[in-house]
Amino acid sequence: MGKYSKYRAYKGNIIYSQDKDTLISKENSYILVLDGIVKGIYPALPEEFPKENVMDWGNNLIIPGFCDMHVHAPQFLQRGIGMDRELLDWLTTYTYPTEAKFKNAEHARKVYTLFVDELLRQGTLHVNCFPSIHYQASEILFDILEQKGLFAFTGKLNMDQNSPAYYIEETEQSLIDTEKFIEQHQNTSQVKPSIVPRFTITCSEKLLAGLGDLCQKYEVPVHSHMCEAVNEMKVVKELFPGYKNGAEIFYKNNLLGQRPTIMAHCIFMDDDVLALMENPNCLAVHCPEATANINAGGIMPVKKLLQRGINLAIGSDIGSGASLSIARAIANTIQHSKIRNMFDPQWEAVNLAEAFYMATRSGGRYFNQVGAFDEGYCFNTLVIDDSNMFGEELTPVERLERFCYAGDDRNICMRYLLGKEVEI
Amino acid sequence: MGKYSKYRAYKGNIIYSQDKDTLISKENSYILVLDGIVKGIYPALPEEFPKENVMDWGNNLIIPGFCDMHVHAPQFLQRGIGMDRELLDWLTTYTYPTEAKFKNAEHARKVYTLFVDELLRQGTLHVNCFPSIHYQASEILFDILEQKGLFAFTGKLNMDQNSPAYYIEETEQSLIDTEKFIEQHQNTSQVKPSIVPRFTITCSEKLLAGLGDLCQKYEVPVHSHMCEAVNEMKVVKELFPGYKNGAEIFYKNNLLGQRPTIMAHCIFMDDDVLALMENPNCLAVHCPEATANINAGGIMPVKKLLQRGINLAIGSDIGSGASLSIARAIANTIQHSKIRNMFDPQWEAVNLAEAFYMATRSGGRYFNQVGAFDEGYCFNTLVIDDSNMFGEELTPVERLERFCYAGDDRNICMRYLLGKEVEI
Repeated sequence: MGKYSKYRAYKGNIIYSQDKDTLISKENSYILVLDGIVKGIYPALPEEFPKENVMDWGNNLIIPGFCDMHVHAPQFLQRGIGMDRELLDWLTTYTYPTEAKFKNAEHARKVYTLFVDELLRQGTLHVNCFPSIHYQASEILFDILEQKGLFAFTGKLNMDQNSPAYYIEETEQSLIDTEKFIEQHQNTSQVKPSIVPRFTITCSEKLLAGLGDLCQKYEVPVHSHMCEAVNEMKVVKELFPGYKNGAEIFYKNNLLGQRPTIMAHCIFMDDDVLALMENPNCLAVHCPEATANINAGGIMPVKKLLQRGINLAIGSDIGSGASLSIARAIANTIQHSKIRNMFDPQWEAVNLAEAFYMATRSGGRYFNQVGAFDEGYCFNTLVIDDSNMFGEELTPVERLERFCYAGDDRNICMRYLLGKEVEI
Repeated sequence: MGKYSKYRAYKGNIIYSQDKDTLISKENSYILVLDGIVKGIYPALPEEFPKENVMDWGNNLIIPGFCDMHVHAPQFLQRGIGMDRELLDWLTTYTYPTEAKFKNAEHARKVYTLFVDELLRQGTLHVNCFPSIHYQASEILFDILEQKGLFAFTGKLNMDQNSPAYYIEETEQSLIDTEKFIEQHQNTSQVKPSIVPRFTITCSEKLLAGLGDLCQKYEVPVHSHMCEAVNEMKVVKELFPGYKNGAEIFYKNNLLGQRPTIMAHCIFMDDDVLALMENPNCLAVHCPEATANINAGGIMPVKKLLQRGINLAIGSDIGSGASLSIARAIANTIQHSKIRNMFDPQWEAVNLAEAFYMATRSGGRYFNQVGAFDEGYCFNTLVIDDSNMFGEELTPVERLERFCYAGDDRNICMRYLLGKEVEI
């Protein structure tokens, strides 16, 4: 057995983010992979490298799989509907009735299977899921994610107040079920349990305090929404008069920054909130399409947060977002930042390097070394065949840009998870 | 032969715009068609209607084909590239070199064939094309559009100043070629010649005056850009000190309002310009994706123009837009109007009925009765199969909305032009 007998090499035009400003592009190069882990990138292979272990992707692009850091799994079949409605109207007319159906395990299995298949189709290999309140459905989602090999966080949703009678929990039971869910999944590998309070409006302080205790006891990450809409923030103020804002409610209940904390939206943040989110445990998730669809009154000042060094990622936020394509969300992030800049010129628009970083490496740090091709990173990878768009004279980075703006899932010709080909 | 022997009937959930505020939705109904022309919509067929003349599309949606009222055909292979650049930089780095290649007829035939095929694939059956300056390439585009059966306007582009040395014309030759092009295509049916000055910056007053004369002599429509970007408007002011603005330049040279006039962008319009555009001959084309990509300094105040009764349509504006999908442009129109509204609350966001109207009936009025299903309209039609998105409990209009936000060309299972099935 030669030195390289267990290695695999993947040849193509390799692109990944080094940091928020830098895209690394290595044309016609080889990624060496051992047991699903990247060992290095080289312009050529040693002579003794076994030919049969080389997968030559020719002129195709090889990029890290995307990270969707905020997506409501039970809203998958609800995407693109009721987009002309206001947030609260939309929630009560479409969203809560849709989520309540996940009491039915058969329905959950059907929809979650479709959902996870579509994630893979769109090149999302790493996902942070928002579930429903139902214990059994949450288990089903966990199992499907695990079976399909994705890297994921998911939990059991918590909501014990300001919710419709048909879709609400008792506080104690919500805590008992959450603890049971975490305990059931203590020793999992790529899919990990998280604590998922819907948002402060639908969670009593007793529930939040209990969840904060669980978060500390089991060292699990938190996933919620924060500073999303002008109206939402007003209601939070009324419900929690003892706190300055929603971020402080989470923080003082051990749900912000003490453990990895993933907060969707973060559109309206004053200096106090920004200071809390500068904690390296925290990640703010920009959901461009959702923000544009369900009018929140503003959009995240992405450039400002990037410049302050706050960790940022991208979420599809299905079902207020309509597309599971994170490539398209990269384009949307840039486009929406430009429109914001037209009317509020103090923050520059976001560029391709920054948006791609958010969608891969930056979101990826919440999993186990994914979203880039540094040595030691998981070979969780997409191969992009853009030959249907032509352009022999383009650079690989120009082709990556074009894929994000003008391509779709049909351009993803292969997906790898830990070096294994993903069947879809 | 029975009374209905030459009729065809198409059954499904039929949706079209009555006016900007009203979507007509007729569930499980029949469109009767004679020689490619709509004769009426009925809940049932007369008993004697021949069964073999009925095409039952079941639960699918039946909608008018889309109108793309501003698209640069030679930029088709350039879409989605250089999006982080400023307009003038983008034009000189990517666009002018790309268009200059259409001097080569073989290249033109290859790219224009791909372009027209993709229009059809995306459900665009009616198109207003921006060509290159090359006579032969413009003829090739005209021929391909005609062969494939689309309803279209296209011409030969004019530019005789402020253009790179490798991509510019002599004034006289530009006028001679334009007249020749129009004369060649006097008696065509669905594809019609138009006059296409690039924009006032690249056209001398002598050229514009000559084009205005041709426009009057041959009664052909005009297609150009206007009031697009802050920088562009500054340059126009410097180049044409005798005029108040770009619209007046076109107007006084018989290129605005005297004949059907299709002007892309129309983002920055003062009351003088608005008054000119209120002419029923005029159409302003909103290109949401392009406006967001190549930062113009603002976006069209769509609701304002709709409320003033100005004719509005939607354009993909490939290559500063990246997608030829007008369905996606409908969603973008709504989304971008919401973002504008967040920062400039004086104009409400656009809704689905308004955006769909712009994309079908409103653009369609510049062709021969297309974009709706009134009696006498051409049966230029798309059949939408959205069964992959489920949702048995949704209304047809909700499903139309979902198709625009979350669907793609794979949901278009049939295209008809004048009642004939389109092969793609």
